Amino acid sequence: MPKIPVGILGATGAVGQRFLSLLAEHPWFEVTDLLASSRSAGQRYGDAVQWILDTPLPAPLADLPVKLSEPGQARARILFSALPSGEARQQEPAFAADGHYIFSNASAYRMAADVPLVITEVNTGHLDILPVQQAQRGWEGFIVCNANCTTTHLVGALHPLHLAFGLEKVFVATLQAASGAGYPGVPSLDLIDNIVPHDYGEEHKVETEPRKIMGRLQQNAFVDADFVVSAHCHRVPVIDGHFEAVSVGLRTSATTEDLIEAFRSYRQAPQIMGLPSAPDPAVVYVEGMFRPQPRLDRMAGAGMATVVGRVRPCNLLDWRFSLLGHNTIRGAAGGSILNAEWMVEGGRVGG
Amino acid sequence: MPKIPVGILGATGAVGQRFLSLLAEHPWFEVTDLLASSRSAGQRYGDAVQWILDTPLPAPLADLPVKLSEPGQARARILFSALPSGEARQQEPAFAADGHYIFSNASAYRMAADVPLVITEVNTGHLDILPVQQAQRGWEGFIVCNANCTTTHLVGALHPLHLAFGLEKVFVATLQAASGAGYPGVPSLDLIDNIVPHDYGEEHKVETEPRKIMGRLQQNAFVDADFVVSAHCHRVPVIDGHFEAVSVGLRTSATTEDLIEAFRSYRQAPQIMGLPSAPDPAVVYVEGMFRPQPRLDRMAGAGMATVVGRVRPCNLLDWRFSLLGHNTIRGAAGGSILNAEWMVEGGRVGG
Amino acid sequence: MPKIPVGILGATGAVGQRFLSLLAEHPWFEVTDLLASSRSAGQRYGDAVQWILDTPLPAPLADLPVKLSEPGQARARILFSALPSGEARQQEPAFAADGHYIFSNASAYRMAADVPLVITEVNTGHLDILPVQQAQRGWEGFIVCNANCTTTHLVGALHPLHLAFGLEKVFVATLQAASGAGYPGVPSLDLIDNIVPHDYGEEHKVETEPRKIMGRLQQNAFVDADFVVSAHCHRVPVIDGHFEAVSVGLRTSATTEDLIEAFRSYRQAPQIMGLPSAPDPAVVYVEGMFRPQPRLDRMAGAGMATVVGRVRPCNLLDWRFSLLGHNTIRGAAGGSILNAEWMVEGGRVGG
Amino acid sequence: MPKIPVGILGATGAVGQRFLSLLAEHPWFEVTDLLASSRSAGQRYGDAVQWILDTPLPAPLADLPVKLSEPGQARARILFSALPSGEARQQEPAFAADGHYIFSNASAYRMAADVPLVITEVNTGHLDILPVQQAQRGWEGFIVCNANCTTTHLVGALHPLHLAFGLEKVFVATLQAASGAGYPGVPSLDLIDNIVPHDYGEEHKVETEPRKIMGRLQQNAFVDADFVVSAHCHRVPVIDGHFEAVSVGLRTSATTEDLIEAFRSYRQAPQIMGLPSAPDPAVVYVEGMFRPQPRLDRMAGAGMATVVGRVRPCNLLDWRFSLLGHNTIRGAAGGSILNAEWMVEGGRVGG
Repeated sequence: MPKIPVGILGATGAVGQRFLSLLAEHPWFEVTDLLASSRSAGQRYGDAVQWILDTPLPAPLADLPVKLSEPGQARARILFSALPSGEARQQEPAFAADGHYIFSNASAYRMAADVPLVITEVNTGHLDILPVQQAQRGWEGFIVCNANCTTTHLVGALHPLHLAFGLEKVFVATLQAASGAGYPGVPSLDLIDNIVPHDYGEEHKVETEPRKIMGRLQQNAFVDADFVVSAHCHRVPVIDGHFEAVSVGLRTSATTEDLIEAFRSYRQAPQIMGLPSAPDPAVVYVEGMFRPQPRLDRMAGAGMATVVGRVRPCNLLDWRFSLLGHNTIRGAAGGSILNAEWMVEGGRVGG
Repeated sequence: MPKIPVGILGATGAVGQRFLSLLAEHPWFEVTDLLASSRSAGQRYGDAVQWILDTPLPAPLADLPVKLSEPGQARARILFSALPSGEARQQEPAFAADGHYIFSNASAYRMAADVPLVITEVNTGHLDILPVQQAQRGWEGFIVCNANCTTTHLVGALHPLHLAFGLEKVFVATLQAASGAGYPGVPSLDLIDNIVPHDYGEEHKVETEPRKIMGRLQQNAFVDADFVVSAHCHRVPVIDGHFEAVSVGLRTSATTEDLIEAFRSYRQAPQIMGLPSAPDPAVVYVEGMFRPQPRLDRMAGAGMATVVGRVRPCNLLDWRFSLLGHNTIRGAAGGSILNAEWMVEGGRVGG
Repeated sequence: MPKIPVGILGATGAVGQRFLSLLAEHPWFEVTDLLASSRSAGQRYGDAVQWILDTPLPAPLADLPVKLSEPGQARARILFSALPSGEARQQEPAFAADGHYIFSNASAYRMAADVPLVITEVNTGHLDILPVQQAQRGWEGFIVCNANCTTTHLVGALHPLHLAFGLEKVFVATLQAASGAGYPGVPSLDLIDNIVPHDYGEEHKVETEPRKIMGRLQQNAFVDADFVVSAHCHRVPVIDGHFEAVSVGLRTSATTEDLIEAFRSYRQAPQIMGLPSAPDPAVVYVEGMFRPQPRLDRMAGAGMATVVGRVRPCNLLDWRFSLLGHNTIRGAAGGSILNAEWMVEGGRVGG
Repeated sequence: MPKIPVGILGATGAVGQRFLSLLAEHPWFEVTDLLASSRSAGQRYGDAVQWILDTPLPAPLADLPVKLSEPGQARARILFSALPSGEARQQEPAFAADGHYIFSNASAYRMAADVPLVITEVNTGHLDILPVQQAQRGWEGFIVCNANCTTTHLVGALHPLHLAFGLEKVFVATLQAASGAGYPGVPSLDLIDNIVPHDYGEEHKVETEPRKIMGRLQQNAFVDADFVVSAHCHRVPVIDGHFEAVSVGLRTSATTEDLIEAFRSYRQAPQIMGLPSAPDPAVVYVEGMFRPQPRLDRMAGAGMATVVGRVRPCNLLDWRFSLLGHNTIRGAAGGSILNAEWMVEGGRVGG
């Protein structure tokens, strides 16, 4: 079967590079279109990009030309968007109007009333909004968003608990990796012998996105899930891997063993369908009070799993635990790709 | 007036070095006794120590001899203890029995029923237990403890709120500096491109010590303060300065401005008495959502102040804020020294 | 063909873990014996080890029992030694006397007059000393050493130049990774916001080992190569990957292009024979004045290649360049394994 | 005596902040003019600057207005320039033409034939070129440059040797701190778990500036000193403090003790005159093979001294040693200020 052509918007940035890296040997997709701003357009990708990943730039893709990021430039219908939020706000609708299927990592439309914010294990049902989106906006294509990197792994750990026990309250304090800010991103003078509190906008995303994702679609409207999140966000001197300390209040009583079992037995459609990028298991539970750690655990499930550990009682809510996940693989490019795989497998989109 | 001789137990370790550094030019105290294990005893201090502070080893003290850590070896009545917990458990009582006044940074006796756990701004009233301690244990001397480094700054920020509004609930997530583990302490392989969750014992200290400190002494027994703490503790790649993200539930309603005013107007006995090591103000409130930061704020008040910022509402409890403090100055050696200054000024101890 | 059983001495340490990781899916070798001190002996490997690599502990090997490190305990004839130098000095001769083939990463016998110090691409001819070693010492087995991690990659870059132009003088300044010191190794207080000069012993190794390795075996004696090395060694806050800044004086004149061509065309027996662990190419030449970098280049050739860049003229000697290589893969465990592969392929050792 | 008014060009950048910090309590100088680009001009300094030093922004200076960086805007005759090289090339001549005395940290005019490149301990004699500079360019004012941060400390250590033994050859490999690149400067993704080779321009500065500085002024022309330098430059994850590994060939024979004595007895005009910012001693010699280290030694002499250690023989040249110095204090702002102090003390410039 011929591979499905796909393109990348914002192909030279940090997340764009991660898309390229994950798609280079993808069994279903073939990267045909690399789009970027006029600064890079017209150059060979290998010349235009300052490659910052610790895996090599895939040789065949280095020779692709960078095209200007405009509708009409892309041959592929499926486009993965690694655009910064401001540019996404302008460009993604233009490409969707032009018939492209946009799988976007940008925050611009995540909370829009007709845009599904999807974590493949959790809420592919929200994709049923797409005909409404297309009708309302007059688009032939569509926009599907994946969540903020911190939200993605938080939901990755909360969803098994929500299914099993019902969530009521969530405290989360994050220790986020530098790569979450892209490149050049955070100056080294800020992250040597230092940590930096995050801006309040990040905390707002982490407090609102999980409620949309774990909420339901009802009469073509998203209804937030009925739990409350309070987030404290911080940047730490780590390359990749967001760590999150979580306390949760649940609606039903449980034991430590019940929680661990909920994590261990969590298995959703992507795992059952065996999608190419699906981690299996989706949640990796690690033993010991010193795990998870970013350097040791971020590549669990090829960077697509959420690693959970340290389940213990909480003095204020019911339970405490820690989680960790790769922020630019599952938390960004990989999350988009898994969404696209699900839609391809379900026959919702094709080449 | 001649200076009061003081000694240091565990003088060659990381906290011992900090005691030495802070006492080197102290207006009231003169370091006369440096005690350490048999590994160092008999050597010149400058030869025995592997100095790790970024300020130089005070030259006159480098020539002092290191004596074996045994009662009878110390000339000074006042001894500051930088001993590891296990050794503190053995040695501090022996020195107290021998008539020494022990100001201890060790955790060994912090929670003992007849040992005051004192932060000078907060609960010098707890020192009234000392006659009971001496009578029960048959000691001529005594042990006064200061709190864990994380607890010290947490209480430093909570006490103004407790006085003004009454505390009910506290959620705290910490990002603690490497120096808190002493030297050699945490391996570099654990803190380059990584963070490490703390052991559960640290979390237990942070959950229990504040309640004793902010509690009351009633009929010769400590009664814990009536609030609950839930702590998540982590080690991060920072040399000095513990950062803590806090949410609090208060007993009376307040505005953001009320909280900031409570921090800014906080002024206790050490500030009023002008004790040599007292920071003034004790709490420094910083503006802006990116502060405090360890590298920029840890030396506030010469490392003796607690820096607070980012006061904002919390979705779950009432308020969120961030705090930062130097863990080996105010959080260890400096806290002990301030306690000793208070007792000297009040005439409770002399040379 | 059944796999050849191999064992690991010092299996629980940092280098021991790397041996285990590299041998877990080796096409020729099967790990049958894990030996360690009495602290670990008797336990399941997975329980005895504190795993510090960022790749997971290979599941089947986690269940192997750890045996006491004594002759008679190991079933395999081939033993890879990850012992610290002091223990290697005691134990390796005992195992060799007992008939084992020791491929040692320890420094204990590297400079011994009858022990070959081998980098597979460079001097397998030195293995001809082994009958002498066995005869003189009365051993049935033998000891073959690989070089210090810094030496290995320095020679990896110097050998192509030596072959092509003749080496006369070498100046090298190193920026070495923390993992070179094992675990716990260097304290984090020494490597956050800091670098540490290395001890002089390391510099001596880097100045002497290359001359033995690139020297010749003549009448059963090693004759050092006729060039001089001056080394400045430093530890930097990097997990893996030694960086070295090199100036060389050559015996024949050359151009920048000649040097780059010498690196690019370098191809030795391990590459020609296609040994399983041989990198191909052995030297990777990178363009651009900002490369190589540890985080981006250390995994070149699966961590087995030496990466060279920045060839430019030198004001004092002839040429300057920079090199980088993985210190615990090619620079330690991987170097030993490649030596063993060469001897197996050549029929010199079997199961 | 009233203080002499001084101004700062490029006042909001990293080096500008250091100037401000060092001048805030200067006994002779009073900061009256803060100049910056149109982005900051018109604002209160405290509002315009993103303060990045670990000492607080001096309160009185925070209230000064930022003025546009144009001749006519500055009241003070003495201006310290913290401008980036490109802007310095444009602006410094304009200010000098307008009668200002420019003490510049920028590289733009360091190598100009009529601009003195001065390290106060070494070559204040070069200031005799100033009348030539003024005559040729028709300036009432002048430009005096201080050296590159790496050069400054290299010369700080080489000059005592040059005086005592005569320099012939110098190898230097540098491990430079992040603050040398200003703010935002080097991205954290480049300096976590990584080091980065420096661009070749930096190496060229380190190879040429020392020869001008230690050369002589003869018939109104600078004659380079007669030694050769080869430099390898690298950026490492350190906030402040450049470390340099040096090998030297000398013109006369010496012993280790001779070299150490040359460092220890080095005492020049700034020390003898007791200039306010002069370190005394100018060179601090530290014992032990693990020193100097950036975190422990950079504040020697309040950041104005050069710290030397590890003197030992070299296999290629005569001697090896290591040096360290604060790059933004002595290596930038402090070097300029010391030059100005010398000229004021000598009556060459006044208010």
